[in-house]
Amino acid sequence: MNDKILIVGAGAIGGFYGGLLAKAGADVSVVCRSDYDIVKRQGFLIDSYSLGRWHFQPRQVLRDASEYQDEADYLILCSKVTSDVDRVAMVRAGLSQHSTIVFIQNGVEIETELQQAFPEHELISGLAFVCCNRLQAGAIHHLAYGKLTLGNLPKGVSAKTRQLQALFLAAGIECLLSEDIVTSRWQKCVWNAPFNPLSVLSGGLPTLAILQNQEHLVRRIMQEVCDIAAGCGHPLPESIIENNIQSTYAMPPYKTSMLLDFERQHSMEIEAILGNALRAAQRQGVATPTLEAMYALMKLRELQIQLNRQEKC
Amino acid sequence: MNDKILIVGAGAIGGFYGGLLAKAGADVSVVCRSDYDIVKRQGFLIDSYSLGRWHFQPRQVLRDASEYQDEADYLILCSKVTSDVDRVAMVRAGLSQHSTIVFIQNGVEIETELQQAFPEHELISGLAFVCCNRLQAGAIHHLAYGKLTLGNLPKGVSAKTRQLQALFLAAGIECLLSEDIVTSRWQKCVWNAPFNPLSVLSGGLPTLAILQNQEHLVRRIMQEVCDIAAGCGHPLPESIIENNIQSTYAMPPYKTSMLLDFERQHSMEIEAILGNALRAAQRQGVATPTLEAMYALMKLRELQIQLNRQEKC
Repeated sequence: MNDKILIVGAGAIGGFYGGLLAKAGADVSVVCRSDYDIVKRQGFLIDSYSLGRWHFQPRQVLRDASEYQDEADYLILCSKVTSDVDRVAMVRAGLSQHSTIVFIQNGVEIETELQQAFPEHELISGLAFVCCNRLQAGAIHHLAYGKLTLGNLPKGVSAKTRQLQALFLAAGIECLLSEDIVTSRWQKCVWNAPFNPLSVLSGGLPTLAILQNQEHLVRRIMQEVCDIAAGCGHPLPESIIENNIQSTYAMPPYKTSMLLDFERQHSMEIEAILGNALRAAQRQGVATPTLEAMYALMKLRELQIQLNRQEKC
Repeated sequence: MNDKILIVGAGAIGGFYGGLLAKAGADVSVVCRSDYDIVKRQGFLIDSYSLGRWHFQPRQVLRDASEYQDEADYLILCSKVTSDVDRVAMVRAGLSQHSTIVFIQNGVEIETELQQAFPEHELISGLAFVCCNRLQAGAIHHLAYGKLTLGNLPKGVSAKTRQLQALFLAAGIECLLSEDIVTSRWQKCVWNAPFNPLSVLSGGLPTLAILQNQEHLVRRIMQEVCDIAAGCGHPLPESIIENNIQSTYAMPPYKTSMLLDFERQHSMEIEAILGNALRAAQRQGVATPTLEAMYALMKLRELQIQLNRQEKC
């Protein structure tokens, strides 16, 4: 019997990974609010740089997870992690007793609220390294990368996680397993914490230009993230900063998700990436002056977005 | 006999203070490059919020200080302090043996290159707290404030400095004397170091919004400037941070000079205000992580301006 999957928050990322799971034979439904009408009528058209073009018609297209007419084996949350999104409520609405909760989202310590709200459910934490854009309603462009990393909370890898991996692999996308996904999240934060805010604060410079001109600042932020992770009991490999620096030099010019959100004047994942890291630092008594400055500046940029919105009203 | 004054770098600030000195009866000539033609023909029209409107016709209008047909009692340098301005060369071109060099400019430790280049000349360091805009060629709008502080280098107040003060006072502008102008410069930096970069990095927020939302960050930068000043042997009064915070809350919404330069995509005084402070910190072994982050981010914004210029070429 095919796995029943409910994607909650089917924007570019959710639509893309949902489309891959459907390709692999799963029974995939989606909750999507803003593009509901078109997706209900036409599904998604996905255009991938590496996997070709395909049409993804979800089994059910829903405005709200509570309308789901089935019991999900996997409920996969793909929304952004911002203050205007109630992740717990979104998950609760679509959950059955045996559903495994998966979240493919950015940030550190974002699992806590889900662990607390759903202590009886299996939880899979997922990290995506992917560039996907929503071109228009129901149309997704997969521009680069695509790799997923999955792991159970608080640790380990379950049979259901392996089964989910198998689906992604069958669809042709790289999918790794992590026995310690919390540490993996901190590892990803080593890259996100400098480049996401710096791309916005620099006025939209690509990662390479940031690195070529302010490598010292990038390294300093990376070091602070490593210090926090170690303080939280998740020491990162010693080589991680060097590896991130070298691989970013090798990357093609890349616009971070925070920069894309900022350019569209959307909510940015400031709390998920920076705020949560800083709260962890405070809890553990780790000094993070540079990260604090980035966070404060990003809060000012967020304020600027809010003021711009009010002006338009 | 009237004082002979040569204003070098007669933009909005130089034109305004030159116009005041002429009003007070001094014999004022100007070096102004970009607006030479119009100023030569028509002089300056100055429109002040507090002192009315007046026409300022300089005695000589020059493209270069070397063309000055007289011997200046005061050579007053009013250019911006940026890497594309050779202050020493600008001063040298117009200098006579008995000329006192005055500079009315932003930044800390900007006196060093002038002291080294002109060890035989009296040097007056001047700080302006003023909002002046160039509306168009030859037209200056004085929007707010106007206060000057003058003092000799390395310390003290000379008769010539008192004489210059008398001229400004006669013209109706507030002018204070400082027995320790180097310390006064650090005091001004306590305000400039946070608000100039933050106004740019926040995306153009006025000082009040910055303060209301990130007072902690502002205080931290101010504290780092106080630490540097103390490390350099210029301890600032304990109340200075509190006073700056309170007076900024009381100020009308204010666009910093760095924000105005940024909006016009002009060179910004990043080195004069931040770079010099950081080099002093390094020299004295003072920790300044927040200021370093501001500096690094401003260098990225400067790079962005340069890239924009290249695109236009």
